[in-house]
Amino acid sequence: MKCILIICDGMGDRPCKQYPKTPLETANTPAFDQLAKKGICGIMDPISPGIRPGSDTAHLAIFGYDPYKYYKGRGAFEALGAGIEVNNGDVTLRANFATINPEDIILDRRAGRKIPEGDEFAKLINNLSLNSATEVKITFIHTVEHRCVLKLEGPNLSHNVSDMDPDVINVKVQPCKPLDNSPEAKRTAEILNEFYAKTKEILSQSPLNEKRQQNGLLPVNGILLRGAGIIPDLQTLDEKYHIRAAAICGAPLYRGVAKVVGMTPIYVPEATGRVDTNTLAKGQAALDHLASNDLIFIHIKGTDNASHDGNYEQKVMMIEKIDAMVQLLLDNLLLEETLIVLTADHADPICVRDHTADPVPIVMVGENCVLSDDVDVFSERACAKGGLGRIHGLDVIPIIMDLMDKTKKFGA
Amino acid sequence: MKCILIICDGMGDRPCKQYPKTPLETANTPAFDQLAKKGICGIMDPISPGIRPGSDTAHLAIFGYDPYKYYKGRGAFEALGAGIEVNNGDVTLRANFATINPEDIILDRRAGRKIPEGDEFAKLINNLSLNSATEVKITFIHTVEHRCVLKLEGPNLSHNVSDMDPDVINVKVQPCKPLDNSPEAKRTAEILNEFYAKTKEILSQSPLNEKRQQNGLLPVNGILLRGAGIIPDLQTLDEKYHIRAAAICGAPLYRGVAKVVGMTPIYVPEATGRVDTNTLAKGQAALDHLASNDLIFIHIKGTDNASHDGNYEQKVMMIEKIDAMVQLLLDNLLLEETLIVLTADHADPICVRDHTADPVPIVMVGENCVLSDDVDVFSERACAKGGLGRIHGLDVIPIIMDLMDKTKKFGA
Repeated sequence: MKCILIICDGMGDRPCKQYPKTPLETANTPAFDQLAKKGICGIMDPISPGIRPGSDTAHLAIFGYDPYKYYKGRGAFEALGAGIEVNNGDVTLRANFATINPEDIILDRRAGRKIPEGDEFAKLINNLSLNSATEVKITFIHTVEHRCVLKLEGPNLSHNVSDMDPDVINVKVQPCKPLDNSPEAKRTAEILNEFYAKTKEILSQSPLNEKRQQNGLLPVNGILLRGAGIIPDLQTLDEKYHIRAAAICGAPLYRGVAKVVGMTPIYVPEATGRVDTNTLAKGQAALDHLASNDLIFIHIKGTDNASHDGNYEQKVMMIEKIDAMVQLLLDNLLLEETLIVLTADHADPICVRDHTADPVPIVMVGENCVLSDDVDVFSERACAKGGLGRIHGLDVIPIIMDLMDKTKKFGA
Repeated sequence: MKCILIICDGMGDRPCKQYPKTPLETANTPAFDQLAKKGICGIMDPISPGIRPGSDTAHLAIFGYDPYKYYKGRGAFEALGAGIEVNNGDVTLRANFATINPEDIILDRRAGRKIPEGDEFAKLINNLSLNSATEVKITFIHTVEHRCVLKLEGPNLSHNVSDMDPDVINVKVQPCKPLDNSPEAKRTAEILNEFYAKTKEILSQSPLNEKRQQNGLLPVNGILLRGAGIIPDLQTLDEKYHIRAAAICGAPLYRGVAKVVGMTPIYVPEATGRVDTNTLAKGQAALDHLASNDLIFIHIKGTDNASHDGNYEQKVMMIEKIDAMVQLLLDNLLLEETLIVLTADHADPICVRDHTADPVPIVMVGENCVLSDDVDVFSERACAKGGLGRIHGLDVIPIIMDLMDKTKKFGA
């Protein structure tokens, strides 16, 4: 028995005055509904009732790792997802090229977002030596647009430091502070403050900015850091259950979480991590790699993007694109051999435009998952009446492993 | 208010191609259905979703003791259930008389199962002195057929050692290994390895085996050990809730778990722990002892035996026998005075022939349990729609104690 686990980011929603039906209720989803008809439905609290999940903590939980124990910041996931090598103990941070004024007030958090010289700017900073960072190797890599990753390698570092990026403009860059009393956190905060000051100097003096100015582009003269993280120390899915797992994700964060729990990334060029993604290409990739894996995780990001934009029609369109992917799976695999699980990592209601703690619908379909119910529509309201009842994100992988017969008895 | 708690071992099931209805759905169960109609139904994860329970861990959980905290191996339960005195710190193991060859390869894990000389063989071994077991008293008792119990009494022992019985034939007896780094586990493993070697010698040389050979029986020349355990340190039900509880169980394991949590065993001669048990005699015993107890636990094993044998018809028959017992209870007690709770300790689907993690149906009926629902049939699918929702095994006793009014407010 194999499994395809589909997690649609922020797909859960709630009705509002303007839209009395949720996007899932409005969308035309014959394949989702076929899953509901054949399988067992329920609702799921990704972390626990009332807790608003981040995408990273929600995925950790759904993969079976208690985020209160295993979540060690977002940075390592992003770095890993971007293809950067991260080892135990390395502290990684998300970094933005930004435009600031001489008083450290942020004018643009993304320096206009268009930064074709990104790699050249990054080279100026990579391998930087800092007075506070003895024995620490600094790696600084540009990924896409304004986005970069900073990695600190060395002894006596901590990820438990505050963000310098205030997430809004027209305010000052925030000094980095230790978030606990350890000397490691204190030292790391000092390193990051020196990093900020020194890179501001280097970038401001770079002739690359003269060219940008000539082209009418904002200067790249500051680096905003946030999401310090380390790799959590955990048993991979393979170590826990002796399974081969793979991940199909357009967005780096999810690829990073998947890597940490032991999934091998499958790269699909048309998977963009945005609403323009090619869901059919992702479904086809899952089918292509099913023979060599026990579990394939497909992540779809576009539903969350549409939610954050408050774009109801786009969310409905994304859901229908995912439905087409599920139809492709149903047309090309046997439910006797492959369990399909479809859910969301959290709700992101159109009326809220951000993550909320509403439970999300979930359906499981497959040979061993036959205690079906009367639910024949996949939606928030319909699934609440399903035979799975209300489960936690942490229950999902154990249930899947039991249905795949990968689990041992506890006791005798 | 009193309570009769009926746990039917492995009764939960799931449909399969050959049997689209579960045994509970097929069986004619007017009494079960009456419970469902009058009471409140739900589904229960004995441990938690996706975790496959052993019968011992499941019973601990349903009795209100977190098995992750209180489960200390099966041995002590089996020994207590067999009527052997076990005190705190004693390490007990399940033991089989077996037939092995000189190279320690197992030819028959039960030495043919017929061992009328069992008590005599046991006497040869009881009080054995071993070089590795200074200050340790060895008690070895034959119970029924090939089954025995080994008890080690003394200082510096541990139950955290591996099984020597590989559970299959034509392979070697496994050397006992410590399962942690403690000197106690190391020492206990050494004792058990010496026990195995020495008893092999003693049994092989016994004239009892000459007689067996003459009678065409397999020799008893090895002892297979497994399930090392100690008594968990816990507060009994009486200590927690000030109730008198009693247990009616045919099979020793369940009697043992019940004893550990403070239930007094009620012996019913016709309760065999097999499919040939007399469920009506067990029901009558419960009625007879209800006046002097607050809670009576009835365990029925046959449903699990039929499941392990993959015998659908036998499981249906067993369920109907239990239904008759429930009818006897309904005919002879008042629901105004006695709460009836009916459930299973785990699923054991006919198509799997072993424990799975599927949730099991549960129903509670009684005066204080009147938030009833629309469920009027007791089955896996029907109960999933019940008003109890999806609960954990650990919730069962607290709910019962609340309904019996044996619980105090937490806080003020």
